Amino acid sequence: MLHREIAGSEIVSAADERRRRILEAARACFARSGFHGASMQEICAAAKMSPGALYRYFPSKEAIIEAIADEERLCAVQIVREIEGEGLLLDRLIDCAMAYLDYARQPETSELFAEINAESLRNTDIGRRFKAIDEEARLFLRAALADAAARGEIGRDIDLDAALGVLMAACDGLVQRQIFDPHLTSGRVRPVLRRIIAAALETPDRG
Amino acid sequence: MLHREIAGSEIVSAADERRRRILEAARACFARSGFHGASMQEICAAAKMSPGALYRYFPSKEAIIEAIADEERLCAVQIVREIEGEGLLLDRLIDCAMAYLDYARQPETSELFAEINAESLRNTDIGRRFKAIDEEARLFLRAALADAAARGEIGRDIDLDAALGVLMAACDGLVQRQIFDPHLTSGRVRPVLRRIIAAALETPDRG
Repeated sequence: MLHREIAGSEIVSAADERRRRILEAARACFARSGFHGASMQEICAAAKMSPGALYRYFPSKEAIIEAIADEERLCAVQIVREIEGEGLLLDRLIDCAMAYLDYARQPETSELFAEINAESLRNTDIGRRFKAIDEEARLFLRAALADAAARGEIGRDIDLDAALGVLMAACDGLVQRQIFDPHLTSGRVRPVLRRIIAAALETPDRG
Repeated sequence: MLHREIAGSEIVSAADERRRRILEAARACFARSGFHGASMQEICAAAKMSPGALYRYFPSKEAIIEAIADEERLCAVQIVREIEGEGLLLDRLIDCAMAYLDYARQPETSELFAEINAESLRNTDIGRRFKAIDEEARLFLRAALADAAARGEIGRDIDLDAALGVLMAACDGLVQRQIFDPHLTSGRVRPVLRRIIAAALETPDRG
Protein backbone atom coordinates (compact mmCIF):
# COMPACT_ATOMS: atom_id res chain seq x y z
CA MET A 1 0.00 0.00 0.00
CA LEU A 2 2.73 2.38 1.04
CA HIS A 3 4.72 1.26 -1.98
CA ARG A 4 1.78 1.91 -4.33
CA GLU A 5 1.31 5.36 -2.90
CA ILE A 6 4.94 6.20 -3.37
CA ALA A 7 4.92 4.76 -6.87
CA GLY A 8 1.73 6.73 -7.60
CA SER A 9 3.18 10.00 -6.39
CA GLU A 10 6.35 9.35 -8.39
CA ILE A 11 4.28 8.91 -11.53
CA VAL A 12 2.36 12.10 -10.82
CA SER A 13 5.56 13.96 -10.10
CA ALA A 14 7.25 12.80 -13.35
CA ALA A 15 4.15 13.85 -15.29
CA ASP A 16 4.04 17.15 -13.40
CA GLU A 17 7.69 17.69 -14.15
CA ARG A 18 7.09 17.11 -17.85
CA ARG A 19 4.05 19.44 -17.85
CA ARG A 20 6.17 22.05 -16.07
CA ARG A 21 8.92 21.66 -18.67
CA ILE A 22 6.46 22.12 -21.55
CA LEU A 23 4.89 25.22 -19.98
CA GLU A 24 8.27 26.81 -19.32
CA ALA A 25 9.36 26.12 -22.91
CA ALA A 26 6.05 27.52 -24.20
CA ARG A 27 6.41 30.70 -22.11
CA ALA A 28 9.84 31.28 -23.62
CA CYS A 29 8.50 30.69 -27.16
CA PHE A 30 5.48 32.99 -26.65
CA ALA A 31 7.74 35.66 -25.14
CA ARG A 32 10.01 35.45 -28.19
CA SER A 33 7.55 34.91 -31.05
CA GLY A 34 4.13 35.86 -29.68
CA PHE A 35 1.05 33.68 -29.19
CA HIS A 36 0.29 33.69 -32.91
CA GLY A 37 3.88 33.47 -34.12
CA ALA A 38 5.03 30.53 -31.95
CA SER A 39 4.33 27.07 -33.38
CA MET A 40 3.86 23.70 -31.67
CA GLN A 41 7.08 22.54 -33.40
CA GLU A 42 8.97 25.45 -31.82
CA ILE A 43 7.55 24.55 -28.39
CA CYS A 44 8.47 20.85 -28.87
CA ALA A 45 12.02 21.81 -29.78
CA ALA A 46 12.34 24.16 -26.79
CA ALA A 47 10.94 21.49 -24.43
CA LYS A 48 13.22 18.86 -26.05
CA MET A 49 10.21 16.57 -26.54
CA SER A 50 8.72 14.81 -29.54
CA PRO A 51 5.33 16.05 -30.80
CA GLY A 52 3.84 12.68 -29.76
CA ALA A 53 5.06 13.08 -26.17
CA LEU A 54 3.98 16.72 -25.98
CA TYR A 55 0.48 16.08 -27.38
CA ARG A 56 -0.13 13.58 -24.55
CA TYR A 57 -0.06 16.56 -22.17
CA PHE A 58 -1.52 19.31 -24.35
CA PRO A 59 -3.64 18.53 -27.43
CA SER A 60 -3.21 22.03 -28.90
CA LYS A 61 -1.46 25.38 -28.58
CA GLU A 62 -4.73 26.75 -27.17
CA ALA A 63 -4.58 24.16 -24.36
CA ILE A 64 -1.06 25.32 -23.49
CA ILE A 65 -2.11 28.99 -23.48
CA GLU A 66 -5.10 28.06 -21.30
CA ALA A 67 -2.76 26.34 -18.80
CA ILE A 68 -0.50 29.42 -18.74
CA ALA A 69 -3.55 31.64 -18.18
CA ASP A 70 -4.55 29.39 -15.23
CA GLU A 71 -1.08 29.79 -13.73
CA GLU A 72 -1.18 33.56 -14.22
CA ARG A 73 -4.61 33.73 -12.62
CA LEU A 74 -3.41 31.82 -9.53
CA CYS A 75 -0.44 34.10 -9.31
CA ALA A 76 -2.57 37.25 -9.66
CA VAL A 77 -4.96 35.99 -6.96
CA GLN A 78 -2.03 35.30 -4.64
CA ILE A 79 -0.56 38.76 -5.20
CA VAL A 80 -3.78 40.77 -4.75
CA ARG A 81 -4.57 38.73 -1.60
CA GLU A 82 -1.54 40.43 -0.02
CA ILE A 83 -3.72 43.46 0.65
CA GLU A 84 -5.87 41.43 3.08
CA GLY A 85 -3.23 41.48 5.82
CA GLU A 86 -2.85 43.66 8.90
CA GLY A 87 -1.89 47.32 9.01
CA LEU A 88 -2.55 50.35 6.84
CA LEU A 89 -4.03 49.72 3.39
CA LEU A 90 -1.38 51.99 1.86
CA ASP A 91 1.41 49.76 3.21
CA ARG A 92 -0.28 46.64 1.94
CA LEU A 93 -0.98 48.17 -1.47
CA ILE A 94 2.64 49.09 -1.95
CA ASP A 95 3.74 45.58 -0.87
CA CYS A 96 1.25 44.12 -3.34
CA ALA A 97 2.46 46.36 -6.20
CA MET A 98 6.12 45.62 -5.47
CA ALA A 99 5.44 41.85 -5.29
CA TYR A 100 3.82 42.10 -8.72
CA LEU A 101 6.74 44.07 -10.16
CA ASP A 102 9.29 41.63 -8.67
CA TYR A 103 7.36 38.68 -10.09
CA ALA A 104 7.41 40.35 -13.52
CA ARG A 105 11.20 40.76 -13.37
CA GLN A 106 11.67 37.01 -13.77
CA PRO A 107 13.30 36.01 -17.07
CA GLU A 108 10.90 36.16 -20.01
CA THR A 109 7.96 37.18 -17.83
CA SER A 110 7.96 40.84 -18.90
CA GLU A 111 8.06 39.86 -22.59
CA LEU A 112 5.20 37.44 -21.98
CA PHE A 113 3.26 40.19 -20.16
CA ALA A 114 3.84 42.56 -23.08
CA GLU A 115 2.48 39.88 -25.40
CA ILE A 116 -0.51 39.33 -23.07
CA ASN A 117 -1.18 43.10 -23.05
CA ALA A 118 -1.02 43.30 -26.83
CA GLU A 119 -3.34 40.30 -27.13
CA SER A 120 -5.79 41.67 -24.52
CA LEU A 121 -6.51 44.59 -26.85
CA ARG A 122 -7.40 42.19 -29.65
CA ASN A 123 -10.85 40.70 -29.59
CA THR A 124 -9.62 37.09 -29.56
CA ASP A 125 -10.34 34.15 -27.24
CA ILE A 126 -6.85 34.44 -25.76
CA GLY A 127 -7.25 38.20 -25.32
CA ARG A 128 -10.60 37.81 -23.55
CA ARG A 129 -9.20 35.06 -21.30
CA PHE A 130 -6.40 37.32 -20.02
CA LYS A 131 -8.68 40.36 -19.76
CA ALA A 132 -10.98 38.34 -17.47
CA ILE A 133 -8.07 37.65 -15.08
CA ASP A 134 -7.27 41.36 -15.00
CA GLU A 135 -10.92 42.24 -14.30
CA GLU A 136 -11.10 39.70 -11.46
CA ALA A 137 -8.04 41.27 -9.81
CA ARG A 138 -9.49 44.77 -10.39
CA LEU A 139 -12.80 43.91 -8.72
CA PHE A 140 -11.01 42.37 -5.74
CA LEU A 141 -8.89 45.49 -5.28
CA ARG A 142 -11.90 47.75 -5.83
CA ALA A 143 -13.82 46.04 -3.00
CA ALA A 144 -10.86 46.51 -0.64
CA LEU A 145 -10.61 50.20 -1.61
CA ALA A 146 -14.35 50.75 -1.13
CA ASP A 147 -14.05 49.28 2.41
CA ALA A 148 -11.08 51.53 3.12
CA ALA A 149 -13.02 54.57 1.85
CA ALA A 150 -15.91 53.66 4.16
CA ARG A 151 -13.44 53.46 7.09
CA GLY A 152 -11.97 56.84 6.10
CA GLU A 153 -8.56 55.33 5.41
CA ILE A 154 -8.61 56.75 1.88
CA GLY A 155 -10.48 59.76 0.50
CA ARG A 156 -14.25 59.28 0.78
CA ASP A 157 -15.08 61.32 -2.30
CA ILE A 158 -12.46 60.17 -4.75
CA ASP A 159 -13.32 58.62 -8.10
CA LEU A 160 -12.38 55.09 -7.02
CA ASP A 161 -12.56 53.45 -10.44
CA ALA A 162 -10.51 56.14 -12.15
CA ALA A 163 -7.90 56.13 -9.35
CA LEU A 164 -7.64 52.33 -9.39
CA GLY A 165 -7.46 52.25 -13.19
CA VAL A 166 -4.61 54.78 -13.25
CA LEU A 167 -2.69 52.86 -10.54
CA MET A 168 -3.15 49.53 -12.33
CA ALA A 169 -2.00 51.22 -15.54
CA ALA A 170 1.11 52.48 -13.75
CA CYS A 171 1.91 48.91 -12.69
CA ASP A 172 1.25 47.57 -16.22
CA GLY A 173 3.64 50.16 -17.59
CA LEU A 174 6.29 49.55 -14.92
CA VAL A 175 6.31 45.81 -15.61
CA GLN A 176 7.67 46.66 -19.05
CA ARG A 177 9.63 49.84 -18.44
CA GLN A 178 11.60 48.41 -15.48
CA ILE A 179 13.21 45.97 -17.92
CA PHE A 180 14.96 48.60 -20.02
CA ASP A 181 15.12 51.68 -17.73
CA PRO A 182 18.11 51.11 -15.41
CA HIS A 183 16.77 53.72 -12.95
CA LEU A 184 13.67 51.65 -12.17
CA THR A 185 15.12 49.26 -9.58
CA SER A 186 12.81 48.02 -6.82
CA GLY A 187 14.51 50.23 -4.25
CA ARG A 188 14.07 53.42 -6.30
CA VAL A 189 10.56 52.68 -7.57
CA ARG A 190 9.07 51.95 -4.14
CA PRO A 191 9.16 55.49 -2.64
CA VAL A 192 7.80 57.07 -5.86
CA LEU A 193 5.05 54.46 -6.10
CA ARG A 194 4.18 55.03 -2.45
CA ARG A 195 3.77 58.78 -3.08
CA ILE A 196 1.60 58.25 -6.15
CA ILE A 197 -0.63 55.60 -4.53
CA ALA A 198 -1.17 57.91 -1.53
CA ALA A 199 -1.96 60.82 -3.88
CA ALA A 200 -4.29 58.85 -6.16
CA LEU A 201 -6.26 57.55 -3.17
CA GLU A 202 -5.96 60.75 -1.11
CA THR A 203 -4.86 58.89 1.99
CA PRO A 204 -4.60 61.20 5.00
CA ASP A 205 -0.96 61.98 5.75
CA ARG A 206 0.19 59.84 8.67
CA GLY A 207 3.84 60.77 8.44
CA MET B 1 5.62 78.19 -65.05
CA LEU B 2 2.65 78.50 -62.75
CA HIS B 3 1.07 75.60 -64.59
CA ARG B 4 4.16 73.45 -64.15
CA GLU B 5 4.27 74.25 -60.47
CA ILE B 6 0.65 73.28 -60.04
CA ALA B 7 1.15 70.12 -62.06
CA GLY B 8 4.26 69.35 -59.99
CA SER B 9 2.48 69.82 -56.69
CA GLU B 10 -0.36 67.66 -57.94
CA ILE B 11 2.08 64.84 -58.69
CA VAL B 12 3.70 65.19 -55.28
CA SER B 13 0.33 65.25 -53.63
CA ALA B 14 -0.89 62.11 -55.44
CA ALA B 15 2.33 60.33 -54.43
CA ASP B 16 1.97 61.61 -50.88
CA GLU B 17 -1.60 60.44 -50.83
CA ARG B 18 -0.56 56.96 -51.94
CA ARG B 19 2.26 56.84 -49.37
CA ARG B 20 -0.25 57.93 -46.73
CA ARG B 21 -2.67 55.19 -47.81
CA ILE B 22 0.05 52.51 -47.59
CA LEU B 23 1.17 53.64 -44.13
CA GLU B 24 -2.39 53.69 -42.82
CA ALA B 25 -3.03 50.20 -44.20
CA ALA B 26 0.26 48.99 -42.71
CA ARG B 27 -0.59 50.45 -39.28
CA ALA B 28 -3.87 48.54 -39.32
CA CYS B 29 -2.11 45.31 -40.35
CA PHE B 30 0.63 45.67 -37.71
CA ALA B 31 -2.00 46.47 -35.05
CA ARG B 32 -3.89 43.30 -36.01
CA SER B 33 -1.10 40.83 -36.78
CA GLY B 34 2.05 42.29 -35.26
CA PHE B 35 5.23 43.47 -36.99
CA HIS B 36 6.39 39.90 -37.53
CA GLY B 37 2.99 38.41 -38.33
CA ALA B 38 1.86 40.95 -40.96
CA SER B 39 3.02 40.23 -44.51
CA MET B 40 3.57 42.55 -47.48
CA GLN B 41 0.67 40.76 -49.23
CA GLU B 42 -1.61 41.63 -46.31
CA ILE B 43 -0.50 45.27 -46.49
CA CYS B 44 -1.03 45.39 -50.28
CA ALA B 45 -4.55 43.99 -49.86
CA ALA B 46 -5.39 46.46 -47.08
CA ALA B 47 -4.04 49.38 -49.16
CA LYS B 48 -5.89 48.06 -52.23
CA MET B 49 -2.66 48.24 -54.26
CA SER B 50 -0.70 45.76 -56.33
CA PRO B 51 2.70 44.62 -54.97
CA GLY B 52 4.33 46.36 -57.95
CA ALA B 53 2.68 49.69 -57.09
CA LEU B 54 3.44 49.35 -53.38
CA TYR B 55 7.11 48.40 -53.89
CA ARG B 56 7.61 51.66 -55.80
CA TYR B 57 7.04 53.49 -52.48
CA PHE B 58 8.49 50.99 -50.01
CA PRO B 59 11.00 48.31 -51.06
CA SER B 60 10.43 46.21 -47.91
CA LYS B 61 8.36 45.77 -44.76
CA GLU B 62 11.34 47.18 -42.84
CA ALA B 63 11.12 50.39 -44.92
CA ILE B 64 7.42 50.72 -44.00
CA ILE B 65 8.15 50.18 -40.31
CA GLU B 66 10.96 52.74 -40.53
CA ALA B 67 8.52 55.30 -42.04
CA ILE B 68 6.01 54.61 -39.24
CA ALA B 69 8.78 55.03 -36.65
CA ASP B 70 9.64 58.42 -38.26
CA GLU B 71 6.00 59.50 -37.97
CA GLU B 72 5.83 58.37 -34.35
CA ARG B 73 9.06 60.19 -33.57
CA LEU B 74 7.71 63.44 -35.03
CA CYS B 75 4.53 63.00 -33.07
CA ALA B 76 6.41 62.29 -29.82
CA VAL B 77 8.59 65.38 -30.33
CA GLN B 78 5.51 67.52 -30.95
CA ILE B 79 3.80 66.21 -27.79
CA VAL B 80 6.77 66.58 -25.42
CA ARG B 81 7.40 70.09 -26.79
CA GLU B 82 4.08 71.07 -25.20
CA ILE B 83 5.90 71.39 -21.89
CA GLU B 84 7.94 74.31 -23.23
CA GLY B 85 5.03 76.74 -22.98
CA GLU B 86 4.14 79.35 -20.36
CA GLY B 87 2.84 78.74 -16.85
CA LEU B 88 3.46 76.11 -14.18
CA LEU B 89 5.34 72.99 -15.23
CA LEU B 90 2.67 70.84 -13.55
CA ASP B 91 -0.04 72.32 -15.81
CA ARG B 92 2.06 71.78 -18.90
CA LEU B 93 2.99 68.23 -17.91
CA ILE B 94 -0.64 67.26 -17.46
CA ASP B 95 -1.52 68.85 -20.85
CA CYS B 96 1.34 66.93 -22.42
CA ALA B 97 0.25 63.61 -20.85
CA MET B 98 -3.40 64.13 -21.85
CA ALA B 99 -2.40 65.04 -25.42
CA TYR B 100 -0.46 61.78 -25.60
CA LEU B 101 -3.38 59.75 -24.23
CA ASP B 102 -5.84 61.42 -26.62
CA TYR B 103 -3.51 60.72 -29.55
CA ALA B 104 -3.34 57.07 -28.50
CA ARG B 105 -7.14 56.82 -28.47
CA GLN B 106 -7.24 57.03 -32.26
CA PRO B 107 -8.40 53.82 -33.94
CA GLU B 108 -5.72 51.12 -34.06
CA THR B 109 -3.13 53.36 -32.39
CA SER B 110 -3.33 51.65 -28.99
CA GLU B 111 -2.97 48.20 -30.56
CA LEU B 112 0.01 49.49 -32.54
CA PHE B 113 1.50 50.97 -29.35
CA ALA B 114 1.03 47.63 -27.56
CA GLU B 115 2.87 45.96 -30.43
CA ILE B 116 5.62 48.61 -30.27
CA ASN B 117 5.96 48.01 -26.51
CA ALA B 118 6.18 44.25 -26.96
CA GLU B 119 8.78 44.70 -29.70
CA SER B 120 10.80 47.23 -27.67
CA LEU B 121 11.51 44.49 -25.12
CA ARG B 122 12.91 42.26 -27.85
CA ASN B 123 16.45 42.88 -28.93
CA THR B 124 15.55 43.46 -32.60
CA ASP B 125 16.27 46.32 -35.02
CA ILE B 126 12.62 47.41 -34.84
CA GLY B 127 12.63 47.20 -31.05
CA ARG B 128 15.81 49.29 -30.76
CA ARG B 129 14.42 51.88 -33.22
CA PHE B 130 11.32 52.48 -31.09
CA LYS B 131 13.27 52.40 -27.83
CA ALA B 132 15.49 55.20 -29.18
CA ILE B 133 12.40 57.40 -29.77
CA ASP B 134 11.27 56.76 -26.19
CA GLU B 135 14.73 57.60 -24.84
CA GLU B 136 14.83 60.85 -26.82
CA ALA B 137 11.49 61.92 -25.32
CA ARG B 138 12.66 60.87 -21.85
CA LEU B 139 15.85 62.95 -22.06
CA PHE B 140 13.89 65.98 -23.25
CA LEU B 141 11.47 65.68 -20.32
CA ARG B 142 14.31 65.02 -17.89
CA ALA B 143 16.05 68.26 -18.88
CA ALA B 144 12.82 70.22 -18.32
CA LEU B 145 12.35 68.59 -14.90
CA ALA B 146 15.95 69.30 -13.89
CA ASP B 147 15.40 72.99 -14.76
CA ALA B 148 12.19 73.02 -12.73
CA ALA B 149 13.98 71.40 -9.77
CA ALA B 150 16.68 74.09 -9.94
CA ARG B 151 13.94 76.78 -9.91
CA GLY B 152 12.26 75.06 -6.92
CA GLU B 153 9.11 74.36 -8.90
CA ILE B 154 9.41 70.65 -8.10
CA GLY B 155 11.15 68.91 -5.17
CA ARG B 156 14.89 69.62 -5.19
CA ASP B 157 15.85 66.31 -3.64
CA ILE B 158 13.63 63.87 -5.46
CA ASP B 159 14.98 60.95 -7.47
CA LEU B 160 14.25 62.57 -10.83
CA ASP B 161 14.94 59.53 -13.02
CA ALA B 162 12.85 57.19 -10.90
CA ALA B 163 9.96 59.69 -10.71
CA LEU B 164 10.05 60.32 -14.46
CA GLY B 165 10.29 56.60 -15.20
CA VAL B 166 7.24 55.84 -13.05
CA LEU B 167 5.23 58.66 -14.67
CA MET B 168 6.17 57.53 -18.19
CA ALA B 169 5.23 53.98 -17.20
CA ALA B 170 1.84 55.24 -15.99
CA CYS B 171 1.26 56.85 -19.39
CA ASP B 172 2.41 53.69 -21.23
CA GLY B 173 -0.05 51.66 -19.20
CA LEU B 174 -2.91 54.16 -19.62
CA VAL B 175 -2.51 54.14 -23.40
CA GLN B 176 -3.55 50.50 -23.29
CA ARG B 177 -5.85 50.34 -20.28
CA GLN B 178 -7.98 53.32 -21.38
CA ILE B 179 -9.10 51.23 -24.37
CA PHE B 180 -10.85 48.55 -22.34
CA ASP B 181 -11.54 50.22 -18.96
CA PRO B 182 -14.68 52.33 -19.44
CA HIS B 183 -13.87 54.40 -16.33
CA LEU B 184 -10.70 55.79 -17.88
CA THR B 185 -12.18 58.64 -19.92
CA SER B 186 -10.07 61.78 -20.43
CA GLY B 187 -12.23 63.74 -18.01
CA ARG B 188 -11.87 61.21 -15.18
CA VAL B 189 -8.18 60.41 -15.76
CA ARG B 190 -7.02 64.04 -15.73
CA PRO B 191 -7.59 64.85 -12.00
CA VAL B 192 -6.03 61.54 -10.87
CA LEU B 193 -3.06 62.02 -13.17
CA ARG B 194 -2.64 65.57 -11.88
CA ARG B 195 -2.50 64.32 -8.29
CA ILE B 196 0.03 61.60 -9.09
CA ILE B 197 2.30 63.86 -11.17
CA ALA B 198 2.31 66.43 -8.35
CA ALA B 199 3.10 63.68 -5.81
CA ALA B 200 5.81 62.01 -7.89
CA LEU B 201 7.55 65.36 -8.43
CA GLU B 202 6.74 66.76 -4.98
CA THR B 203 5.51 70.05 -6.37
CA PRO B 204 4.72 72.54 -3.63
CA ASP B 205 0.95 72.78 -3.13
CA ARG B 206 -0.32 75.92 -4.86
CA GLY B 207 -4.00 75.14 -4.39
